[in-house]
Amino acid sequence: MPFIELKPGTLLSPTAVVMLSCASFEDKPNIITLAWVGTVNSDPPMVSVSIRPERHSYRIVKESGEFVVNLVSRELMKATDFCGVKSGKEMDKFEACKLNAIAVPGMKYAPAIKQSPAYLACVVRQEIDLGSHTMFLGEIVNVGVQKSLMDDKGKVDFERADLVAYCHGEYMGLKKPEGFFGFSVARPEVLKRRLKKN
Amino acid sequence: MPFIELKPGTLLSPTAVVMLSCASFEDKPNIITLAWVGTVNSDPPMVSVSIRPERHSYRIVKESGEFVVNLVSRELMKATDFCGVKSGKEMDKFEACKLNAIAVPGMKYAPAIKQSPAYLACVVRQEIDLGSHTMFLGEIVNVGVQKSLMDDKGKVDFERADLVAYCHGEYMGLKKPEGFFGFSVARPEVLKRRLKKN
Repeated sequence: MPFIELKPGTLLSPTAVVMLSCASFEDKPNIITLAWVGTVNSDPPMVSVSIRPERHSYRIVKESGEFVVNLVSRELMKATDFCGVKSGKEMDKFEACKLNAIAVPGMKYAPAIKQSPAYLACVVRQEIDLGSHTMFLGEIVNVGVQKSLMDDKGKVDFERADLVAYCHGEYMGLKKPEGFFGFSVARPEVLKRRLKKN
Repeated sequence: MPFIELKPGTLLSPTAVVMLSCASFEDKPNIITLAWVGTVNSDPPMVSVSIRPERHSYRIVKESGEFVVNLVSRELMKATDFCGVKSGKEMDKFEACKLNAIAVPGMKYAPAIKQSPAYLACVVRQEIDLGSHTMFLGEIVNVGVQKSLMDDKGKVDFERADLVAYCHGEYMGLKKPEGFFGFSVARPEVLKRRLKKN
């Protein structure tokens, strides 16, 4: 038996780490950093984000019924961490991190972060209290990607974005791709073409 | 405006990619690879996994009410891809990938994958049909980590695991950690101590 048993815990790794931006009729734009986030459905495209009820953003997302998921590059790593440990009750995090809030089509209040590589604008479809966190299920109604990340075929090239993953309390960058979905059964000519760029 | 708008889609990146193992009273152990997975609650610890109803594992998870999330190392990358494109209706994926199913305390049927760096054994608490996928919310009732990943303080060191992330259709390894939760506000002596090992 190669495993040792540990106390049940949130050991899923790596995960995304994102900056969620939100606002409401009465609340100015705020940012909260989340690693408890995931894609949950392809059609319609949906994500889940889990927020503790005691966090400042919880009520904002609950009342506005919307949020924007902003992906994180290594350049944003320090701001990302900062927005995870500080509270919007005490400061304007956009100002503190020198980030800009910009309007997103389809959102009434929630802005995107101008410096983010890409954003997913979401409308809350369901919320479920799970214990420590409330899970919000958001339908992705608008997606924006930095122009500089589009390749010459009009496809998103996230290698240019230098994205950050979160792994058991640590932030880390990504190495070059070593495989693509289906590579294990791809024909030799497809393998050659697809892996050539690496 | 630095962004171009794209059709709404599942662009959250990077994500985890895991091998979910399952079995039931009438089904032998099977593996399905998933990137639509995320941590959704800390206490009790819970994950969400989303599976298309037409997949072989869907009915197995639904009927058994349990599943095991196996983390993925670079060594397992090819097997991981293979278990994402092939169906358990047609083959025994454990056999095809030369992986071993081992019993997990707390699971009636679902085994863990012996070669995985770590597993999270889950009991289904809720399932929600979202459209293309059904989201299963699982409470993590047992966690196992390879002995070789434990450091001399008895903590899990995932750097030794060489984990894989999934990013918009591609598999990639992780670079060395460049920050830890709280590093943006840490005192200089804490920074020095925590980042020394890198």
